[in-house]
Amino acid sequence: MSNGDIFVGEIIGTAVLILFGAGVCAAVTLNHSKAKAAGWVAIAFGWGFGVLAGAYTAAPLSGGHLNPAVTLGIAVDTGKWDKVWVYVLGQMVGAMLGAVLCWLAYFAQFQANRDEETALPTLGIFSTAPEIRNPVANLMSEIIATIALVLPILAFGLTKGLGESGTTALIVALLVVGIGLSLGGPTGYAINPARDLGPRIVHSLLPIPNKGTSDWSYAWVPVSGPLIGGALAGLIYNVAF
Amino acid sequence: MSNGDIFVGEIIGTAVLILFGAGVCAAVTLNHSKAKAAGWVAIAFGWGFGVLAGAYTAAPLSGGHLNPAVTLGIAVDTGKWDKVWVYVLGQMVGAMLGAVLCWLAYFAQFQANRDEETALPTLGIFSTAPEIRNPVANLMSEIIATIALVLPILAFGLTKGLGESGTTALIVALLVVGIGLSLGGPTGYAINPARDLGPRIVHSLLPIPNKGTSDWSYAWVPVSGPLIGGALAGLIYNVAF
Amino acid sequence: MSNGDIFVGEIIGTAVLILFGAGVCAAVTLNHSKAKAAGWVAIAFGWGFGVLAGAYTAAPLSGGHLNPAVTLGIAVDTGKWDKVWVYVLGQMVGAMLGAVLCWLAYFAQFQANRDEETALPTLGIFSTAPEIRNPVANLMSEIIATIALVLPILAFGLTKGLGESGTTALIVALLVVGIGLSLGGPTGYAINPARDLGPRIVHSLLPIPNKGTSDWSYAWVPVSGPLIGGALAGLIYNVAF
Amino acid sequence: MSNGDIFVGEIIGTAVLILFGAGVCAAVTLNHSKAKAAGWVAIAFGWGFGVLAGAYTAAPLSGGHLNPAVTLGIAVDTGKWDKVWVYVLGQMVGAMLGAVLCWLAYFAQFQANRDEETALPTLGIFSTAPEIRNPVANLMSEIIATIALVLPILAFGLTKGLGESGTTALIVALLVVGIGLSLGGPTGYAINPARDLGPRIVHSLLPIPNKGTSDWSYAWVPVSGPLIGGALAGLIYNVAF
Repeated sequence: MSNGDIFVGEIIGTAVLILFGAGVCAAVTLNHSKAKAAGWVAIAFGWGFGVLAGAYTAAPLSGGHLNPAVTLGIAVDTGKWDKVWVYVLGQMVGAMLGAVLCWLAYFAQFQANRDEETALPTLGIFSTAPEIRNPVANLMSEIIATIALVLPILAFGLTKGLGESGTTALIVALLVVGIGLSLGGPTGYAINPARDLGPRIVHSLLPIPNKGTSDWSYAWVPVSGPLIGGALAGLIYNVAF
Repeated sequence: MSNGDIFVGEIIGTAVLILFGAGVCAAVTLNHSKAKAAGWVAIAFGWGFGVLAGAYTAAPLSGGHLNPAVTLGIAVDTGKWDKVWVYVLGQMVGAMLGAVLCWLAYFAQFQANRDEETALPTLGIFSTAPEIRNPVANLMSEIIATIALVLPILAFGLTKGLGESGTTALIVALLVVGIGLSLGGPTGYAINPARDLGPRIVHSLLPIPNKGTSDWSYAWVPVSGPLIGGALAGLIYNVAF
Repeated sequence: MSNGDIFVGEIIGTAVLILFGAGVCAAVTLNHSKAKAAGWVAIAFGWGFGVLAGAYTAAPLSGGHLNPAVTLGIAVDTGKWDKVWVYVLGQMVGAMLGAVLCWLAYFAQFQANRDEETALPTLGIFSTAPEIRNPVANLMSEIIATIALVLPILAFGLTKGLGESGTTALIVALLVVGIGLSLGGPTGYAINPARDLGPRIVHSLLPIPNKGTSDWSYAWVPVSGPLIGGALAGLIYNVAF
Repeated sequence: MSNGDIFVGEIIGTAVLILFGAGVCAAVTLNHSKAKAAGWVAIAFGWGFGVLAGAYTAAPLSGGHLNPAVTLGIAVDTGKWDKVWVYVLGQMVGAMLGAVLCWLAYFAQFQANRDEETALPTLGIFSTAPEIRNPVANLMSEIIATIALVLPILAFGLTKGLGESGTTALIVALLVVGIGLSLGGPTGYAINPARDLGPRIVHSLLPIPNKGTSDWSYAWVPVSGPLIGGALAGLIYNVAF
């Protein structure tokens, strides 16, 4: 795969992932949405099928990592580091693009947030926030949840290309549904630095009425936790398998 | 594939799709239904598994497009336009047939709408309506959601025939579940001109008591939005892949 | 496949199907159940994954029809009628066995129905009942829902053996989830004569406290509707494909 | 497969399974969790996708049994007993490790249980408890649910290695979702002695505030019920297939 293919593939695939993922949070959160209050099961499946959509879209170009923690875990396992920067750059650009697309898809709903009486904070649509603010515990949650993502991916052969086989991306997608259901409770499961940081940047820039804080003081947790978790998964895989 | 096979396949497959899709909306909306108020997760999975049922049924005959936006995206990508009219004609006939079948399956429930005190508007069972009526924003939602449908389909090879491989239609079905969960909030995700226009025509003709408006002023949005989105997806795929 | 293998396979597979299907109805209905009031989404997935479990279990022995309407549809399509009686006999025995197993699995819950103040009618755990009692409309619902089951099954090749390929039974299972979500509202989707009649017989015999009526006056609808639907699906398939 | 590979594979795979399974119970139960009160559908899918994650992770090393009842059923069917102790030992260690990881992932939430006014009993996150305490009925529930797990697994070829084929572990995962939905009502479906006993030991040792009883008087049911069910499934398979 050429650097250009990887870059374009990760941009498109991660944009699709974030469009779906931020989209389901918008759908469940915002007023005047048909899915208002559809609950956590909807959120977990929405993010998981976002992985499905993004991974199959990106697969022919880049293999569909869509996540710096996955790219890092593969690099730690295989020792090949030369493409890492291309993947991560594409993932960051794609995550920002996806967040903008979500804003456009829910444009009328975001504009309706202008009404002071019903206005809601909007960061939760873009990025994660902990239920209990405790950096050590939050970091630990993100590390464990990311290991639970990357270790299975390595074990069933992401290194051979995530979406090329018929069902690999489907299984990763359902794995992500499971992580959401099981390990999303404490922090909202970033498990992907680009998924959290890209949309947070976009949130801080977009002209959304009453958008509320972008909470930069927490931003380091969903970046460093997944990176630590991805690297640890690569190490565990390398030692145990 | 002969024109006759394509026509029959798209009629049967789209009829099955709309029977399931309108069916789940009837199930969740109408009084005296066991699934009353089952919520948005039920709707998203019902439409997705309608795609599953329709695509596998149509696959041996027509490949199972079931959607003019998909047919258009493939035509833009491949440059082959000669069968487009057969597909779209079959899809329109099938969508109307499916809407009639849904009415028959829920006949007693529709008749019970005669009771003025509990009567509900029924268009939402057949066609989409926006939560906030804003044509530009609604069109943008439909365009983005349709790109999110057609681009992944093109990327994992619909052009080779949607249902012939063992799992392709399954993945498209789950993709449609995801679009419903994530991008259905603003407009109810037509993402398919035949899915919206065919049942709207049927709604305007059927003798349903207290059926309410067929809302023709909105009808152009869920037709033109998906067509624009499908064409754009074909262009993006052609350029990027 | 020998008659003995078919008979045993259909008994075991249908018993598993009904254990799961009646089980999820018990789980959602009965007092002192952890899944009490889990809703229609739970019921639809419970029945669908019961098909998954039953079909994969029966596949090596009988191909896993588990449903006289499916057996009939295949016979109408292929013209081979000599094994039909073996399939249907096994399905009826299996359905009754599965209903007994469900009663045993929920034995303490059924016994707790002894309490007059919280006692609930129990037929809905075993067999279907319409929301609006209208034989013509109920029959129409069952016929349409059964066509929506059998026609896709025929189209993607049940005739080659339901569970032998890796994913066929999975797709049928998700199809059944979809039928539940979309077409289960009016009558509770029998779509299978053995699924309704076998457990109804068992319900009329079991010593369940305060069990309520077995509603024999409705029993002919969920038997004849699915048979008509299965036969029509076979005819449609034979003509159109 | 060497004893060392089996031991390590079962530890890692079972730890992943319990991390997801206990995790979803924590997510739905504990205060300050985003998935609080997400309901039984969330629990059933969380456990099922925990099987998915654990089985694919363990597959290259041990085949991914993750459950002494499965290991026992295979041994009864095949007559090969020499590796059983390695599997079971790994499963027990893994189940305890997974329970500790769940505690760490939800550390801040468990610490918040210190507040006497909102404190909740925590055993249900780790181990099962019956809704109606009736040892004979509870045992019967566990036996039937375990047969419904192990018999389908044997029938679609676990003996050839659970995760090696592309979709086998996916189907087992959905089967476990189905067992949760349909047969989890009475006892919370242990269907796996290690899944219940390992986390119960951990629960009795961890310094969780206001953790409540570890309910040792019930512990024999979710150990012996699944073992009896697994052995019976092996016998049934051996005779009928």
